[in-house]
Amino acid sequence: MKFCSHCGNPVIQRIPEGDSRVRFVCDHCQTIHYQNPNIVAGCLPVWGTKVLLCRRAIEPRLGFWTLPAGFMENGETVEQAARRETDEEACATVNNLSLYMMIDVPHISQVHVFYRAELANLQFAAGIESLEVQLFEEADIPWSELAFPTVSRTLECYYADRITQLYPVRSEALPPSRGIKKT
Amino acid sequence: MKFCSHCGNPVIQRIPEGDSRVRFVCDHCQTIHYQNPNIVAGCLPVWGTKVLLCRRAIEPRLGFWTLPAGFMENGETVEQAARRETDEEACATVNNLSLYMMIDVPHISQVHVFYRAELANLQFAAGIESLEVQLFEEADIPWSELAFPTVSRTLECYYADRITQLYPVRSEALPPSRGIKKT
Repeated sequence: MKFCSHCGNPVIQRIPEGDSRVRFVCDHCQTIHYQNPNIVAGCLPVWGTKVLLCRRAIEPRLGFWTLPAGFMENGETVEQAARRETDEEACATVNNLSLYMMIDVPHISQVHVFYRAELANLQFAAGIESLEVQLFEEADIPWSELAFPTVSRTLECYYADRITQLYPVRSEALPPSRGIKKT
Repeated sequence: MKFCSHCGNPVIQRIPEGDSRVRFVCDHCQTIHYQNPNIVAGCLPVWGTKVLLCRRAIEPRLGFWTLPAGFMENGETVEQAARRETDEEACATVNNLSLYMMIDVPHISQVHVFYRAELANLQFAAGIESLEVQLFEEADIPWSELAFPTVSRTLECYYADRITQLYPVRSEALPPSRGIKKT
């Protein structure tokens, strides 16, 4: 940020009065420009014993596999965002969404939220941001070709929880759990 | 937003190519300025049968009671934000935070996240944004003087769940549950 989005004058970085953090501040119109974390919302779409993954057609991580997910938009609920991203990336409809993972990614100021969801039917296809969309059995998950650690972690937890059929809502932060070994 | 924060030229509102939503776009430097929801993180600090509330010293809702909560900052986890806000608003230390409520407030593009937490000790005091901080028994909660519907809703759920001592993580949106009657 170099210029004030309100008046167009240059901003400076300083700690505003009564604050404890450095902000972008406009000393012309006195606007303080706060910057806050973003939510990435997505689904873990399930069909029987299979899970739906999308191969990314865009950077970052072009060519790698992901759960359908993306930035939540203003005016949405987190669940609506997860549903919309699943529609956009996998042209898929999902039902019975259950909050499952909330994973902090503080080094990039993001919070990733995943819902377990039932795929409504077998009508799915690559959306504009996907190269292909495919159902995977656990044994076929391309672990080394997953796009993001939060996707790997969500799938790891899902397969661990599937043994007991209990799916507690999980809240954790990356990277402490990144190195967890799959059992 | 009137000016590009990157180059200082005026922005316009249009749907960028490949997008489906109106964004602020700078046709001078081609920057697209996305605007996304914010996370408000807070705690429900418990001491035995009592809950800690803060009376707000700032707008909005000056003079009304709230759970300690505020905007999550870049570089934090949601839990760190909840802990920091509890320290800032109530000068209180909390332990054993458990994710409890994720409440969408889509009309103002916010997601409110509350943790149940144990107050570490009886050392608390009004922070700079609070007029007073006080422990309340359920019978004394100032329901008609609570600052925000997400605070009311979180307390309603807490007292309902306290009967069974089971506190499932809840995910819901305002306003559908706003009119819920306390039983």
